[in-house]
Amino acid sequence: MKRFALTVEFDGTPFFGLQRQAHGPSIQQSIETAAKKVTGENVTLHSAGRTDSGVHAFAMRCHLDLEKDIAPFRLMEALNARLRPDPIAIIGCEHKPNDWHARFSCIGRSYEYRIRNRRAPLTLEKGRAWHIAKPLDHAAMHDAAQSLVGRHDFTTFRSAHCQANDPVKTLDRLDVSREVDAVIIRAAARSFLHHQVRSMVGTLALVGQGQWRVDKVAHALEARNRAALGLNAPPEGLYFVAARYEDESEENII
Amino acid sequence: MKRFALTVEFDGTPFFGLQRQAHGPSIQQSIETAAKKVTGENVTLHSAGRTDSGVHAFAMRCHLDLEKDIAPFRLMEALNARLRPDPIAIIGCEHKPNDWHARFSCIGRSYEYRIRNRRAPLTLEKGRAWHIAKPLDHAAMHDAAQSLVGRHDFTTFRSAHCQANDPVKTLDRLDVSREVDAVIIRAAARSFLHHQVRSMVGTLALVGQGQWRVDKVAHALEARNRAALGLNAPPEGLYFVAARYEDESEENII
Repeated sequence: MKRFALTVEFDGTPFFGLQRQAHGPSIQQSIETAAKKVTGENVTLHSAGRTDSGVHAFAMRCHLDLEKDIAPFRLMEALNARLRPDPIAIIGCEHKPNDWHARFSCIGRSYEYRIRNRRAPLTLEKGRAWHIAKPLDHAAMHDAAQSLVGRHDFTTFRSAHCQANDPVKTLDRLDVSREVDAVIIRAAARSFLHHQVRSMVGTLALVGQGQWRVDKVAHALEARNRAALGLNAPPEGLYFVAARYEDESEENII
Repeated sequence: MKRFALTVEFDGTPFFGLQRQAHGPSIQQSIETAAKKVTGENVTLHSAGRTDSGVHAFAMRCHLDLEKDIAPFRLMEALNARLRPDPIAIIGCEHKPNDWHARFSCIGRSYEYRIRNRRAPLTLEKGRAWHIAKPLDHAAMHDAAQSLVGRHDFTTFRSAHCQANDPVKTLDRLDVSREVDAVIIRAAARSFLHHQVRSMVGTLALVGQGQWRVDKVAHALEARNRAALGLNAPPEGLYFVAARYEDESEENII
């Protein structure tokens, strides 16, 4: 049995999320079905993150095990051929030791959240960004974000359906910057709670619009109560950017 | 009568091009229809460029004349409301003198052409870039591009349907650069012939794949013959980026 690590790009729009769901299409189901067509084997896909319906990925990391002896490049090509027309692309594929695990070996995850901040509706970025018409003070958002960086109990910024045992996480980075009318939020941590990035972004957007004072974000964090949450940002602006592993150099990160 | 300059972003995918067509939807028709709904007036839209079917724009410049007394911001909002669900957004609107013409006053146009250069099919950029699986030597493409910069007879790089009287144009800039697996071509000139950017990009792609030697591009140019053309690049990778006018500072350019 050989373990293969996959790097996966996808447009999350038509899916009910990465993880297999009884009630609708998922990225996991598409890749497992493609692998079955290629090898005849029933495989289980494991991934670094479990993205929600509508969330995108530039480079999700996954793994699967195969009995079939196939070169990684050939597996990548064969999977891509069978994945059509689903908007899922295997952009990397390599052998890994059998104790390497896409989820449990992952030591860092990063996300990007895109907001387009302008009056006019979106065209080219429709379904790819959160459209906010009211002007955002991105500097205030960045200031507020810094109160979330570090080791905290993130109960306030966690979905009611979050399955993590421990709400304490260490947020390494939460940066807000502006490029013309795009406001970009970059988040990095060893791991995140369910809905954590979207919850943080939604709350920062209230700060950006002047509805929340900067220091209210710290108070919401301290409340350790979902009811103190400002707003959950919509999924279409969120991108899984990269996963880090101890056996890989930083340069591997796209 | 008041003249209004519009800055327009659009996803060209569902349109038969910017210019009004008898046989299908156009950006011009959508905006003229929206303007009629707002003001009751029959207007004609003039634009800096006439993009083909499938070509996109970040900031096309257009103008129209109205009898109705309406503030530019209100006109922009009203047009955007009436343009839904078409993927066209008016992202800027301002008064201009009656001798200001979106097409004839324009002294500079710039385009960007996006290629994604990788084996895997496109997901998030499907319909937004040209997918080339074979590795491209972007440095060779850039070298070859420099032979097209300057004042030349661009007959080779011109559509058979081009209506310009004179095939001589001055190309100010044709830069090829790579950002990971994206190869970006940036072109700037006072004006372009019909299909000129796509013809130049298609030919450079042959150089990038090693099918053409770098110096063959200069020979194709000298041939002044459409038959010497390498290839016309597909429309979905092309974006109209900006138009320059003498009465506007460079900072106005998005």
